[in-house]
Amino acid sequence: MSESVVITDVGPRDGLQNQPKILTTQERLALIRAIAEAGVPQIEVGSFVSPKAVPAMAGTDQIFANLELEAFATSSIALIPNMKGYELAAAAGARTVTMVLYASDGMAQKNAAMSMAEAELVTVEILKLAKQDGIEVIATIAVAFACPFDGATDPAVTEAVVDRFINAGADQVVLADTIGAADPQQVRALTASLVKQHGAVKLGCHFHDTRAMGLANVFAAVESGIRRFDSSIAGLGGCPFAPGASGNVATDDIAMMLQQMGFETGIDLPKLLQASDLAQRLTGTAPGGRAKAWLQGHLTKLAS
Amino acid sequence: MSESVVITDVGPRDGLQNQPKILTTQERLALIRAIAEAGVPQIEVGSFVSPKAVPAMAGTDQIFANLELEAFATSSIALIPNMKGYELAAAAGARTVTMVLYASDGMAQKNAAMSMAEAELVTVEILKLAKQDGIEVIATIAVAFACPFDGATDPAVTEAVVDRFINAGADQVVLADTIGAADPQQVRALTASLVKQHGAVKLGCHFHDTRAMGLANVFAAVESGIRRFDSSIAGLGGCPFAPGASGNVATDDIAMMLQQMGFETGIDLPKLLQASDLAQRLTGTAPGGRAKAWLQGHLTKLAS
Repeated sequence: MSESVVITDVGPRDGLQNQPKILTTQERLALIRAIAEAGVPQIEVGSFVSPKAVPAMAGTDQIFANLELEAFATSSIALIPNMKGYELAAAAGARTVTMVLYASDGMAQKNAAMSMAEAELVTVEILKLAKQDGIEVIATIAVAFACPFDGATDPAVTEAVVDRFINAGADQVVLADTIGAADPQQVRALTASLVKQHGAVKLGCHFHDTRAMGLANVFAAVESGIRRFDSSIAGLGGCPFAPGASGNVATDDIAMMLQQMGFETGIDLPKLLQASDLAQRLTGTAPGGRAKAWLQGHLTKLAS
Repeated sequence: MSESVVITDVGPRDGLQNQPKILTTQERLALIRAIAEAGVPQIEVGSFVSPKAVPAMAGTDQIFANLELEAFATSSIALIPNMKGYELAAAAGARTVTMVLYASDGMAQKNAAMSMAEAELVTVEILKLAKQDGIEVIATIAVAFACPFDGATDPAVTEAVVDRFINAGADQVVLADTIGAADPQQVRALTASLVKQHGAVKLGCHFHDTRAMGLANVFAAVESGIRRFDSSIAGLGGCPFAPGASGNVATDDIAMMLQQMGFETGIDLPKLLQASDLAQRLTGTAPGGRAKAWLQGHLTKLAS
């Protein structure tokens, strides 16, 4: 009877590339398996970017070669920055790729040395190819609410990008609050408008907890009908090109909140907290979520 | 044009009594003054309880004797547990007192060695006296959403307590999520129902951030029309009789979020962050809010 929400853990990509310690391929695989074993339905397992630019993501082809996630019913996603990344991801066996679009020119220039429009052209070109190859494409719109360089994002700009990429055939379009500066009223308004125009099936949100509003923004989006969220195990993350951004919303916390609110996530929370502990042990810097309070003693009985 | 929200900082009472270091009267006064100077309209400055039971609150009469808060247009509130506390508060010059009611017998017994009904009788008796004395009474309903001893609170129980105390003439009735276990859907439902029955003017909410849902719950209550919130400078707090409870929602964060959403709070955020720094220096344990991200560098320009 209850409604489902699809959580995508982006910790093994967005998280690991934004903390100081570089994990080995075996450590990255151990973390991905722990998240999959907890029942998280989608995991962004790595990116096909230049190992010089992002050393933590070197060897993502080896991650794909060693994944046996089929046993866990979890989908693996690769982030790709360009056509070369797409070719590497496809060759490695990725069935879903994420591409980054921009709702500001300032961020597009800093992150990708392109304009917004140029980044869109690259993505449309890859999207066409992916359709032929039977590979799913997630279009993630960076700075969909606010940009550290250009200030507040005009909702009309974000809406126009969403419109173009839903029409271009993107399988999912994700609104990313890259620097964690959005407030829930802003999120409620933009997501309600987009759900009204496009329905909720293809729309997702990606929040950071920089200003402690992460779960408030998730709730605001849920109220608008959004049922897809990115989050990061143990709150790992940030953005190397966005000064001031702190970790993603913790998968631990978002899963706890949504389950407590009665949504099906497919996630086994005690197992997820084991994965969270592993993320903290492996990195030494993951902040960890607050969901441990849920497990501790008497609080457990409140969560059903 | 914009709507107002009234924030009550409960840090100098709820916060200071729940952290290990006992501050001197001068330190407590310095913290209260710093919060008042930031424009916070109401401050719970202390409680008139047994100094044996709560050593951190000894000498609250000296706090009142030394307060010169009139200059800051800030109201001072005293928490009182019983008739003796009321008499001490009235003698000390308190113009507003807070009394605690319970939405579970388990919590009433642990916190006050009374049943819910007995606690209500005590409060009604004091309420009558306060009316004669011209002293305002805030009735705070502990465990309004969930109890660490009795589990989830039946909303009908909380609604009945609210109903009795609004009818009995309480000036404000505050719903307290004492252990920080409420989720925003639950908050949205209960507050919407209560606002429909009683209007929002006398209703307030008091959230803890135990499960990272503090600001999500504030947003949910705001959507229902609630315009009064308790919070604690630098997120100080907890509850000594409620195992597992962590700090109150930080005043820093709630003020940041509400101002970003366009509400008037009367609070000067940079000055508030100075008070937050002071709370952290004085106690050594206050977690601090996330609002510092708002002030740091480029993020500032996003907040208007």
